[in-house]
Amino acid sequence: MKPWEEYARPDTEREQRCGVSEAVFCPGKSSDQIAAIIQELRKKTEPVLATRATLEQARAVQQLVPDLVYHEQARLLTLGAPKTPKGGAVLVLAAGTSDLAVAEEAAVTAQYLGNKTERLYDVGVAGIHRLLAHRDRLNDARVLIVVAGMDGVLPSVVGGLVEKPVIAVPTSVGYGVSFGGLAALLTMLNSCAPGVAVVNIDNGFGAAVLATKINKL
Amino acid sequence: MKPWEEYARPDTEREQRCGVSEAVFCPGKSSDQIAAIIQELRKKTEPVLATRATLEQARAVQQLVPDLVYHEQARLLTLGAPKTPKGGAVLVLAAGTSDLAVAEEAAVTAQYLGNKTERLYDVGVAGIHRLLAHRDRLNDARVLIVVAGMDGVLPSVVGGLVEKPVIAVPTSVGYGVSFGGLAALLTMLNSCAPGVAVVNIDNGFGAAVLATKINKL
Amino acid sequence: MKPWEEYARPDTEREQRCGVSEAVFCPGKSSDQIAAIIQELRKKTEPVLATRATLEQARAVQQLVPDLVYHEQARLLTLGAPKTPKGGAVLVLAAGTSDLAVAEEAAVTAQYLGNKTERLYDVGVAGIHRLLAHRDRLNDARVLIVVAGMDGVLPSVVGGLVEKPVIAVPTSVGYGVSFGGLAALLTMLNSCAPGVAVVNIDNGFGAAVLATKINKL
Amino acid sequence: MKPWEEYARPDTEREQRCGVSEAVFCPGKSSDQIAAIIQELRKKTEPVLATRATLEQARAVQQLVPDLVYHEQARLLTLGAPKTPKGGAVLVLAAGTSDLAVAEEAAVTAQYLGNKTERLYDVGVAGIHRLLAHRDRLNDARVLIVVAGMDGVLPSVVGGLVEKPVIAVPTSVGYGVSFGGLAALLTMLNSCAPGVAVVNIDNGFGAAVLATKINKL
Amino acid sequence: MKPWEEYARPDTEREQRCGVSEAVFCPGKSSDQIAAIIQELRKKTEPVLATRATLEQARAVQQLVPDLVYHEQARLLTLGAPKTPKGGAVLVLAAGTSDLAVAEEAAVTAQYLGNKTERLYDVGVAGIHRLLAHRDRLNDARVLIVVAGMDGVLPSVVGGLVEKPVIAVPTSVGYGVSFGGLAALLTMLNSCAPGVAVVNIDNGFGAAVLATKINKL
Amino acid sequence: MKPWEEYARPDTEREQRCGVSEAVFCPGKSSDQIAAIIQELRKKTEPVLATRATLEQARAVQQLVPDLVYHEQARLLTLGAPKTPKGGAVLVLAAGTSDLAVAEEAAVTAQYLGNKTERLYDVGVAGIHRLLAHRDRLNDARVLIVVAGMDGVLPSVVGGLVEKPVIAVPTSVGYGVSFGGLAALLTMLNSCAPGVAVVNIDNGFGAAVLATKINKL
Amino acid sequence: MKPWEEYARPDTEREQRCGVSEAVFCPGKSSDQIAAIIQELRKKTEPVLATRATLEQARAVQQLVPDLVYHEQARLLTLGAPKTPKGGAVLVLAAGTSDLAVAEEAAVTAQYLGNKTERLYDVGVAGIHRLLAHRDRLNDARVLIVVAGMDGVLPSVVGGLVEKPVIAVPTSVGYGVSFGGLAALLTMLNSCAPGVAVVNIDNGFGAAVLATKINKL
Amino acid sequence: MKPWEEYARPDTEREQRCGVSEAVFCPGKSSDQIAAIIQELRKKTEPVLATRATLEQARAVQQLVPDLVYHEQARLLTLGAPKTPKGGAVLVLAAGTSDLAVAEEAAVTAQYLGNKTERLYDVGVAGIHRLLAHRDRLNDARVLIVVAGMDGVLPSVVGGLVEKPVIAVPTSVGYGVSFGGLAALLTMLNSCAPGVAVVNIDNGFGAAVLATKINKL
Repeated sequence: MKPWEEYARPDTEREQRCGVSEAVFCPGKSSDQIAAIIQELRKKTEPVLATRATLEQARAVQQLVPDLVYHEQARLLTLGAPKTPKGGAVLVLAAGTSDLAVAEEAAVTAQYLGNKTERLYDVGVAGIHRLLAHRDRLNDARVLIVVAGMDGVLPSVVGGLVEKPVIAVPTSVGYGVSFGGLAALLTMLNSCAPGVAVVNIDNGFGAAVLATKINKL
Repeated sequence: MKPWEEYARPDTEREQRCGVSEAVFCPGKSSDQIAAIIQELRKKTEPVLATRATLEQARAVQQLVPDLVYHEQARLLTLGAPKTPKGGAVLVLAAGTSDLAVAEEAAVTAQYLGNKTERLYDVGVAGIHRLLAHRDRLNDARVLIVVAGMDGVLPSVVGGLVEKPVIAVPTSVGYGVSFGGLAALLTMLNSCAPGVAVVNIDNGFGAAVLATKINKL
Repeated sequence: MKPWEEYARPDTEREQRCGVSEAVFCPGKSSDQIAAIIQELRKKTEPVLATRATLEQARAVQQLVPDLVYHEQARLLTLGAPKTPKGGAVLVLAAGTSDLAVAEEAAVTAQYLGNKTERLYDVGVAGIHRLLAHRDRLNDARVLIVVAGMDGVLPSVVGGLVEKPVIAVPTSVGYGVSFGGLAALLTMLNSCAPGVAVVNIDNGFGAAVLATKINKL
Repeated sequence: MKPWEEYARPDTEREQRCGVSEAVFCPGKSSDQIAAIIQELRKKTEPVLATRATLEQARAVQQLVPDLVYHEQARLLTLGAPKTPKGGAVLVLAAGTSDLAVAEEAAVTAQYLGNKTERLYDVGVAGIHRLLAHRDRLNDARVLIVVAGMDGVLPSVVGGLVEKPVIAVPTSVGYGVSFGGLAALLTMLNSCAPGVAVVNIDNGFGAAVLATKINKL
Repeated sequence: MKPWEEYARPDTEREQRCGVSEAVFCPGKSSDQIAAIIQELRKKTEPVLATRATLEQARAVQQLVPDLVYHEQARLLTLGAPKTPKGGAVLVLAAGTSDLAVAEEAAVTAQYLGNKTERLYDVGVAGIHRLLAHRDRLNDARVLIVVAGMDGVLPSVVGGLVEKPVIAVPTSVGYGVSFGGLAALLTMLNSCAPGVAVVNIDNGFGAAVLATKINKL
Repeated sequence: MKPWEEYARPDTEREQRCGVSEAVFCPGKSSDQIAAIIQELRKKTEPVLATRATLEQARAVQQLVPDLVYHEQARLLTLGAPKTPKGGAVLVLAAGTSDLAVAEEAAVTAQYLGNKTERLYDVGVAGIHRLLAHRDRLNDARVLIVVAGMDGVLPSVVGGLVEKPVIAVPTSVGYGVSFGGLAALLTMLNSCAPGVAVVNIDNGFGAAVLATKINKL
Repeated sequence: MKPWEEYARPDTEREQRCGVSEAVFCPGKSSDQIAAIIQELRKKTEPVLATRATLEQARAVQQLVPDLVYHEQARLLTLGAPKTPKGGAVLVLAAGTSDLAVAEEAAVTAQYLGNKTERLYDVGVAGIHRLLAHRDRLNDARVLIVVAGMDGVLPSVVGGLVEKPVIAVPTSVGYGVSFGGLAALLTMLNSCAPGVAVVNIDNGFGAAVLATKINKL
Repeated sequence: MKPWEEYARPDTEREQRCGVSEAVFCPGKSSDQIAAIIQELRKKTEPVLATRATLEQARAVQQLVPDLVYHEQARLLTLGAPKTPKGGAVLVLAAGTSDLAVAEEAAVTAQYLGNKTERLYDVGVAGIHRLLAHRDRLNDARVLIVVAGMDGVLPSVVGGLVEKPVIAVPTSVGYGVSFGGLAALLTMLNSCAPGVAVVNIDNGFGAAVLATKINKL
């Protein structure tokens, strides 16, 4: 038994099986554990990604694996260069400035997994002209990731404007009955614009993985 | 003690106190009770409204109070003519055809309480051009009642387009995680377009009362 | 104003805008309304689909629009022939026999929207050999729709086995704390297999629309 | 692209479109971002408001925009003088002393948006004589904002006493099954006094915007 | 083993132990079972009560135990005369006419358990003068049972007016976010008027048992 | 492909793999489907069980498979004789008479799967002497299944009295905040008596399967 | 207007009206506000109680009102001596040691409001002999307050053993699906032992007020 | 009365009655209380366990009872040596590295209560080959404890592979709609693999007690 088998069994065959290699989910893991798993995964493929790393975790793991890069807003650690972009563009939209951490997790992940990645932020429907002014960019993308908190309305409107697949990401931004993103999630699942699918609250990473799988087709 | 005091104390002074007379909430009341309360209320003012009357209740109460009119889609019983309209127009919007029962409860109530009432139905955001084509009508209204089920997105968009007060009414239309209108309610309460207030699910009557109070100012 | 504008504004441009034409959501609509909207939509494109039609609704609307076909298990009304299939295969998996209504809604919709459609039913993980025996079929599909009720576990397992996008559909099948599909929905949103996106409970139609958008790329 | 377009697109036309200019929601934004957005907004109109600013945020942003005023209890930053009051009085009621932060957010916002603003605090129904002693003040207001936590009962009682529109604001004050204001919200949505509309928990700002829209009519 | 021991073990010592004899909860029991349990209980004490009996159950059990009396509105079956009243009066208040089934369950139970019982119905706070007009009756009671649905506000107001214990009973009357009485229950548990305790939704019977225990002191 | 492979893939190896053969979950299946699956399963083993069969389903399937026995209270269809009992006794306790359907599902299942099965019903804690009088029977069992609705208190008390494993089964019996068994489920999961495990609401079948697996050790 | 009328209107007539004087709820109030309200209340009656005071608040308010006594476990500030005990004994039971903060809030409040107060702690049902050993003490009390967290089972058992009124207090003690006391609250509301009423989670104070009202009868 | 009877009544007969001695639940207890209870319990039996001890509590209690051992990851304090193992092996599986605290609580408890204990960690279904590679170890165990957070899928798959009892433990690991372990709990309760029972979220201790009771049979 290898030393890390006491606590982890890195899935080194995931890229071959699922097209995207395993990423390390940092919460609840020690920096030693994170570093050991990253080292094991890099033997098979690069880049390696670690998600939801706090600044403290990032600094501690970088001591152990110095060539790691930390993307602070996106809370991502990356090892190695992004894959060469293939397919069309993945466009990440965010409803408000407060949603940027999740939007950036999606955008940086999409970039490292080998997608041309574009951003269009703060285009919430309270001022819908901001969105409608960019209809060309919406139509030019191959996959759209739409990030929104509070009322979570943006994906419903985007879904009614474009031909391409829309992946909706609710964020935990809000207060009162936003219930940490649950209200936005429900809005998105109930969307009257069919063809919108949803991932877990704040799961920018998962949205980017799905966008990559779609973009690779 | 009057015979009906065993089960009811009609609030005959409500119009004087609150500007709008008491309406009879029909669920859980017998047709005898409904008829007796209507007869008591009409002594002070007309029209008298009774809400949420099923077709069966309506037919039974009409036997006892023949001059009652039943508005089937709106599930309203009315006695007497609408008040003379004052103030500006109350515009009732509905996101989808399935929301019409609630929208009509709002519209007929608003009409009987003395408002010029207009309707604009099936303008949900999955095809937002349908709404944007009517921006003039939105701007011409004095108060807007916006009715929507499922994702409940319409009030957020309308609230970002107009200067006038918006009253949002979630409906129980939907399935799955619409949770009988709860998802639409949460969307509306979390709306990023400030100046939107919300009433209970399917409460077209309450929205019309508030619209009337506002329109009378 | 056309007569149906009192209650409906069919979005005849949706196919051009979104790639998939508007379908009629039957609950809460009268058979007259459903028939009129279908007649309006067919002027622009065929096939026309109407979802969630009960047997009673179907029979009544067929009186008015005789060339409608009713797919009873899928609760779909269709007018006109399926579009010519393009792209790869859309594979619909169902965890149990009780999930077939939703799985068939997805499969029939996918077929009519122009996809080669395949089915693999009753492959829940309580006997996981049933799924593993079909790994080739999983890998040959271009998009997978995975339908499951109760514990909703199947998409997590499928998502760990394939390279292609997985759309998960929770169903309302179950009892006790299945909460009408909510438990399955949560399982799917929390899936540890990244690249799985989810639609509303029982929303086979929406899953098929998204699969079509992806398959068209 | 202007530098702030990377993270924000201030909606400088909102006042013209909606009658009330955009305010800055501070949570999740850096002080640099808040300051830049305020500077952009002030080019078009004054006053500019920023909501939910913590004391730390306020001090940091004031370093960058020295003429900002911080209203600590209301957690509001304001730039420029209040608009000249028009219309009647907006009366803000609070059920208890613990609700004052939200009540003050409503009152200060209403004042800056150009309303004569009055306050009546700690008049909860456990000692209803405190409220009834002020019936004249209730009747003299043009719009009432009623703020309450815990059981959220006050708006139901006020709504039964006055002719004017009542906007109810639940607060997160309470413990146990107050569920952070949810219980108060439900009480208000279920109010038997029709003509009461509700905004999100702790959303004093939104209530004041709606009161302003109504008061301007 | 007695024949009924296969399905029931009537607690014939409960009156001696708890002061109030066991009542039969009818839902889910056959008429044979209900009759057999009543016959067993009557051997020790009278009156015997059976709660939540539907009209059908009542008629069927009366075939087997002819001297049973059915109180239809209260859904109670009683066998034997009420106990002689002792102590002060138990006053049952109901907020609305729709709450009468629960209020009557409380009142009839209180009467049969040996309390002087009074009623004051339809005194909800939307017209608070109706309640204030009866302050003497409120003060004259020894225990108050306050029944309310929808917003559940009445016990908070009553609790602030009287010196005597108040038992609050939420009812399932309402719609939308009344959630079958949950909203009223939460209002009552969060009541700012201390000294109010609450029983389960629609549990008029339990409230009457507690009132009896208190009244006996 | 066999004809039933269109809708079902009976797991005929489950007994060999898991020790207990697959049972048929009847809801949502047609009588043809149920009969075909039973016929397929019986080729490998007997008895075959089908759960949650309504009376109508039972009668229809018995037309197709005449040697099926229907246990009405337990809603079970069985084909073939019970297995020969091995191990100790499985004791099924029920808190109230209304819980008998679930208790019987557990007891009949346990009997057919090859356990000596005993019953002790209506021993809820409101009269705890009824339970304490049977401490010997509690101690003599090898596994205990404790079924309770409403407050779900019985397993906590039993768990504190015995040495043997306790499987708790919440039932949907109750009203108001019993929430269809959820309250009882939570009580059981929070039990202060460690060594109590819980199955889904009303899942007498699952409890009996686990009891069988334990009893076989 | 007195200076404290800006933020508070102490209800100095509450003792006369309700039998128990107003207490100060400390959360969300400054120490200046707490001190000023206490000073105002003491003009009419003593003792004065302030609830939920943190150690920091207590120390700060004691600077301003030196004769305040702080009961740390109960989180109560008291001014003046307890009232002379009248009536019978109020017995406070607690299921576990972790429930003591709430139990002490109830016990100290009951003492200061003029009740003979007794305590019986750590008698949860996992070892039910601990409770049954004290049946005499249970029966000797005039009112029982039963405090329990986690599964909240104790009041159901006590309610089945005694003749006197039982007030149940759920506590927020627990983890997982105790949901901060919600599970215990539901258990208590669903109690099969009738005659048990419930107050809000952790509301030892409210339970003591009700016990006092009952004990005074 | 012994000094600790003011706050605790250690259940020193629990081992005799229930087979497993009482453990001390540390949250909400002072270090003096924990130490006193441990000292009392050790008079009857060893080892003594105290659960959920923070590092701070552990250090403080070790000052008072120096021979206590602290198992940091499992948050357990133990006094005395593990019991001699009897019966077969208890195998603890964990889906991910982040679930180790709960898995270790189960494993260390099982060891001290006298079981041969084995571990198999990080075998979640996103890479199901990791689990299938260990089918022999699964089949060799006598009882299986399966620990999983997020989607909670692992017990459903394990339950379909083995003959032995499976105890599922949901953990609070996850984010968004994992709701602190609720989603995993629901998945496990809805498991299609019958014979799986569930304990409270993060309750590794309870799972180990039940496993011990089963293993002792």
